[in-house]
Amino acid sequence: MSDRGFPIEEFRTRVLKAQTLMAKAGLAALLVTTEPDLRYFSGYLTRFWESPTRPWFLIVPASGEPIAVIPSIGAALMARTWIKDIRSWRAPDLVDDGVSLLAETLREVAGTSGVIGLPMGHESHLRMPLADYARLTAKLAPSVIGDDAGILRSLRMVKSDAEINKIRAACGIADRAFARVSEIAASGEPLDRVFRRFQMLCLDEGADWVPYLAGASEQGGYSDVISPATETPLAEGDVLMLDTGLVRDGYFCDFDRNFAIGATTEANNAAHARLIEAVDSAMQIARPGATAADLFHAMDRIVTGGAGGSDAGRLGHGLGMQLTEWPSLIPADQTELQEGMVLTLEPGIETGPGRMLVHEENIVIRASGAEFLSTPAGPHMPVLRGAR
Amino acid sequence: MSDRGFPIEEFRTRVLKAQTLMAKAGLAALLVTTEPDLRYFSGYLTRFWESPTRPWFLIVPASGEPIAVIPSIGAALMARTWIKDIRSWRAPDLVDDGVSLLAETLREVAGTSGVIGLPMGHESHLRMPLADYARLTAKLAPSVIGDDAGILRSLRMVKSDAEINKIRAACGIADRAFARVSEIAASGEPLDRVFRRFQMLCLDEGADWVPYLAGASEQGGYSDVISPATETPLAEGDVLMLDTGLVRDGYFCDFDRNFAIGATTEANNAAHARLIEAVDSAMQIARPGATAADLFHAMDRIVTGGAGGSDAGRLGHGLGMQLTEWPSLIPADQTELQEGMVLTLEPGIETGPGRMLVHEENIVIRASGAEFLSTPAGPHMPVLRGAR
Repeated sequence: MSDRGFPIEEFRTRVLKAQTLMAKAGLAALLVTTEPDLRYFSGYLTRFWESPTRPWFLIVPASGEPIAVIPSIGAALMARTWIKDIRSWRAPDLVDDGVSLLAETLREVAGTSGVIGLPMGHESHLRMPLADYARLTAKLAPSVIGDDAGILRSLRMVKSDAEINKIRAACGIADRAFARVSEIAASGEPLDRVFRRFQMLCLDEGADWVPYLAGASEQGGYSDVISPATETPLAEGDVLMLDTGLVRDGYFCDFDRNFAIGATTEANNAAHARLIEAVDSAMQIARPGATAADLFHAMDRIVTGGAGGSDAGRLGHGLGMQLTEWPSLIPADQTELQEGMVLTLEPGIETGPGRMLVHEENIVIRASGAEFLSTPAGPHMPVLRGAR
Repeated sequence: MSDRGFPIEEFRTRVLKAQTLMAKAGLAALLVTTEPDLRYFSGYLTRFWESPTRPWFLIVPASGEPIAVIPSIGAALMARTWIKDIRSWRAPDLVDDGVSLLAETLREVAGTSGVIGLPMGHESHLRMPLADYARLTAKLAPSVIGDDAGILRSLRMVKSDAEINKIRAACGIADRAFARVSEIAASGEPLDRVFRRFQMLCLDEGADWVPYLAGASEQGGYSDVISPATETPLAEGDVLMLDTGLVRDGYFCDFDRNFAIGATTEANNAAHARLIEAVDSAMQIARPGATAADLFHAMDRIVTGGAGGSDAGRLGHGLGMQLTEWPSLIPADQTELQEGMVLTLEPGIETGPGRMLVHEENIVIRASGAEFLSTPAGPHMPVLRGAR
């Protein structure tokens, strides 16, 4: 039987939780416009969001089921989800690209006095043209659109068991792809070819698609962790880092692995072991009631001696329907960990001027502690000897 | 020698063109926040945009070079572009995530009386939290942020020869991958496995990554063209459609191919031949001075007899740094074609109730007519006989 998608109860539960929080916050409706927010309530999964042309809307009323207000090109696929009230227009419409239909629907749902909540806080954005948003707010008056009171953040940050299983499946695929890196990487191979072939390994092991791959291969560590591949061949003594966010059934993993090309140095090994020690240190305190900041400090003590971090800005983050989600493992983030939160632990360590190593694992917070979702790496950096 | 990136002159030309249009529109600065807009002026290429956490900003002043206002995690990579003025903050910052730094920089560039242009029109969005945008506009007063007067649209819609070459390279990779579909698709293969393996073919043929793949395999045509893969095995007599947007050096192709699984029908073949006829009909009139609407009508006459289109909403669109760009091939889009515009021609035809075939090619507008960038398909739908 297919393990794709979720039973309808999963979506009903999400909507009911949202409606409970909406009642507390005095919101007459929620309006969402981004891929993950829309999918969270509907299960609507398509790569068509890669096209920025058309806006998509979903409304969660104070009670009852969500309403989709979407381009007609997506109506057939939306009709295969649990959403029954689907209103569509033929987009793109250069004069009125869904704005009137959305305003009418919001008016019907929220009346003329209700506040409509829209995610406006950190890590959010509005996925519609700003000029159309201005038209929408003008049409809605005297109703107003306000902040969603953090409802999407608080709901999505805690994962259900079904979601955790999907993230675990994504991690398992990356685990298996990383175990095969010796098939594709050796001294002399251009880095961009290694990147292409690593993505092929991810797909071969079961990834639906591979939205993220970054990395580097340099001597004694790398200068940043977000670069695309250059054509430079891997060289003996390099540290090769591959950091992937692959997707299985709409959920991401996000972790990296480091490899020594041909040979390694004592300094590289010591830095790598320190990173593993930092992860272990965070794991020991990762449980409900600890904070995101606590995890930061546990790792920062190991990698900088408590200096307060680096230019990367954080030592981990939430993970789920997006490569990165709330919270952030930074000193300022006092978010309390809750059972069901899925996080990355991502300590970095300086290995020289403008040089670093970064290591990353994926974990889930359980009642009594944390569990790895990725298969944790050991302290010794694997050496790729080029026997291919 | 590497064909990656552009010479600095390319970026200088883009900036000068922008500044000419800004002077006409009375704009003191342009502010851009999305991946393609930022890359258009800077050459900054990274997959890190997959993480929605951090906002990124680039300012084009009325004269002089652009200024990047970005998270410190990206400063090293930005320093490898031609951008010299890079201002960064340690993001994420839960209190002030770049807003003050951006406001100060805009004040410095635009003074207190200038209007700052931001893309607000069709197909655009603002990639920063709405609450932070409100803080920004409050800090900037009495300066205001207004529409960019369509400057980004008009600039990016016309491609340079260097850009056209990159799109052609992406098309060539997809051409070669489509030529190998018989290696991976046959009756009995689950569609999701065909999708995974088709992405592997794209990577094997030189794609840097594969941001888009949609398609279907059904009898007598398919019900929509934006679905991800199901686990249903291909069946004798299916039409398999694969529609890919792969990226090479930051530029997309976007076209599809149809295949008959095992055997085909006269009806399928006739529908396919009609689609090719529609493409040819648009090619005959595609030259500077014709409009996007003209191309729509040329194809619509063939596929519906002139009924005015379908729920897909358009019969093609612009293409470049994004899978879909302006203009839209719809009756309402009177955009005049210009030399250097890259478009998709994407006619669809109804083959039964809720059933259609869609065919897509990529073209560039030249002074005397249009050229194919994809290798155009012939009228006969290829049959995959499963000899593997």
